[in-house]
Amino acid sequence: MSELGPNAKLIGEKGSRARLDTPALLVDRDALERNIAAMAAHARACNVALRPHAKTHKSLEIARRQIAAGALGICCATLGEAEVMARGGVPGVHVTSPQVTEAKIARLVALAASPHRGLSVVVDHPANLAALDAAAQGAGITLDVLVDFEAGQGRTGVASEAALGALVSAALAAEGIAFRGIQSYSGNLQHIADRAERRARALAQTDRLAAMLTRLRDAGIAVPIVTGGGTGTFDLDPERRVFTELQVGSYVFMDVEYRHALADGRNALPFETALLVSTAVVSVNATGYVTTDAGLKCFATDGPEPEPLSGAPPGSRYEFFGDEHGRLVIPAGAAKPALGARIECVTPHCDPTVNLHDFYHVVAGDTLVDIWPVDARGKR
Amino acid sequence: MSELGPNAKLIGEKGSRARLDTPALLVDRDALERNIAAMAAHARACNVALRPHAKTHKSLEIARRQIAAGALGICCATLGEAEVMARGGVPGVHVTSPQVTEAKIARLVALAASPHRGLSVVVDHPANLAALDAAAQGAGITLDVLVDFEAGQGRTGVASEAALGALVSAALAAEGIAFRGIQSYSGNLQHIADRAERRARALAQTDRLAAMLTRLRDAGIAVPIVTGGGTGTFDLDPERRVFTELQVGSYVFMDVEYRHALADGRNALPFETALLVSTAVVSVNATGYVTTDAGLKCFATDGPEPEPLSGAPPGSRYEFFGDEHGRLVIPAGAAKPALGARIECVTPHCDPTVNLHDFYHVVAGDTLVDIWPVDARGKR
Repeated sequence: MSELGPNAKLIGEKGSRARLDTPALLVDRDALERNIAAMAAHARACNVALRPHAKTHKSLEIARRQIAAGALGICCATLGEAEVMARGGVPGVHVTSPQVTEAKIARLVALAASPHRGLSVVVDHPANLAALDAAAQGAGITLDVLVDFEAGQGRTGVASEAALGALVSAALAAEGIAFRGIQSYSGNLQHIADRAERRARALAQTDRLAAMLTRLRDAGIAVPIVTGGGTGTFDLDPERRVFTELQVGSYVFMDVEYRHALADGRNALPFETALLVSTAVVSVNATGYVTTDAGLKCFATDGPEPEPLSGAPPGSRYEFFGDEHGRLVIPAGAAKPALGARIECVTPHCDPTVNLHDFYHVVAGDTLVDIWPVDARGKR
Repeated sequence: MSELGPNAKLIGEKGSRARLDTPALLVDRDALERNIAAMAAHARACNVALRPHAKTHKSLEIARRQIAAGALGICCATLGEAEVMARGGVPGVHVTSPQVTEAKIARLVALAASPHRGLSVVVDHPANLAALDAAAQGAGITLDVLVDFEAGQGRTGVASEAALGALVSAALAAEGIAFRGIQSYSGNLQHIADRAERRARALAQTDRLAAMLTRLRDAGIAVPIVTGGGTGTFDLDPERRVFTELQVGSYVFMDVEYRHALADGRNALPFETALLVSTAVVSVNATGYVTTDAGLKCFATDGPEPEPLSGAPPGSRYEFFGDEHGRLVIPAGAAKPALGARIECVTPHCDPTVNLHDFYHVVAGDTLVDIWPVDARGKR
């Protein structure tokens, strides 16, 4: 078998999309390109920079397209992702989660010491800052650091303005550290369905951040980078001109959650579904449903269920049916898809869904035009 | 980095378990060996064969240990798993899901035509049987086939005794097919908590199967293999002497679900927890909890949450906290684990949890003694 999997031999063959070995993760090449271009145009219009989040796609090919469209770098959630991206030549890699253990700090400093342009990492605790400082000095480098501010989600970040100020001061004083700015990510706001509520809460959080930044700058502290934001607030984050760059990720694909959260009529998004899973019908003996070959090991299960988009009778519903199988429930009176028929589904939560696949099957119309590895899949 | 990941350099180092780069999937070598030995002894005592399900572990090393303990082969849920196992030298590979598409049938026949001992596959539809027959004849081989009977779960399998009889007859008549037996897997019974109910339903299903087998054999049809069963019914399936072999899988690891389903006092199991995830504390700024580095991308989310086993104050609770993070909720008054501290958790649903990891970190006591790849991870 090819290193690009069992479908490599179909690349370029007319009609190959319907004959793919399944289950297969699909990316619609043209929709992806339009999403990348639309976000780039939005950022230019708002005069904000983009450092899109590669935790969504984990792909060098997609990161390179984002850079080519004007992004100044990419964000990574794990150090393993950052290693893949930096070593793949992607510039400006920012690690958005604290790297705390001895093992991770050693890898981080090794990566920062390698010929790579612009690696940075967040820190949210003085003990972690001290450990990073010591390791950086030990390696004879200066490590770019942003202080992570807890912006409502409660996951990581300093919890108060006093703690923020103390950590910024410590970073400025540390010889192995270059203080680069503040990260403030409101993950808790991204999926609020009502746009007015989403806007009110996003702006309240941004105003709180702005006031703190003003006090830091009044104290003579330069804060070159203010990073945060997500696809759910992509049009709200730039409004107050507080963020210097956005970490948007899911806009490249638009999963079921983002379709539901944002397609409320009051907030038509300029992004399209670009990510699908193609699954085949493998059993048709039951009444009212057929069994497919894409289950828990093909779709993230932390959110909604997949949505059948093509190949299924209108009104069909997709349910998980174990690790390797799905159940396509057919409306009464509709004809069941045949054994071997392909169903294409919009994916639930795109980031962990992508993490279950080794390859993107890049499609244009009815044809498989390329296969891209999910380069940073499973990298910690 | 080594092809065995960032922890390869720690193999054999005393105390390395507490210094692993995290998150890391752990397998307790001695508990694993005891589980394999206990199931092998049980099967010998019941005079039933074992063909353990490799969908649980996806590992050549573990499959080889099961074979060495007396198993006559292993089961696989996907053709990709079967390719890895067969090409890795594991004998007697049985594929427990129908292989329906042209692409899968071509791969199946290629695998069956390769020098491998004892590949078999299930079939649940005459059209699929005809396609397998044609492909086998085209390749000049005979394909071993078992007819899949729907035993309550409704996922795959023929739905009636009449359909079973017709498909068996068709298999016997097909020149490219060797009919080898019946598969009857009651996945719906495995997690019934009450042992008396689990036993009553398992035996009722087995008796139904036995009656059908009697009628087939009375009609002069030899049924050499009757396969089914799972860890939840491992002691019930052999009771009626209907199954010739068991497909038990999860017993090698014992996840949170199986601990809860079976540790009800009435059914003390001779299997131990052998699978853990080691995670590090990466943020300690919140009140009442700490944030760890193992989230949705380290644990299956289709069932219960992970259970902290060591490193956490008694009464702590583990919650998912996004793709890359967990939240360890600490009881009031207990001391928070320190930044960088390791927490080891019993895993939820083991099969899809393992599928999220590239490596097993094999531990004995406080030491990392080996690293095994999850060979068939993500293979379809």
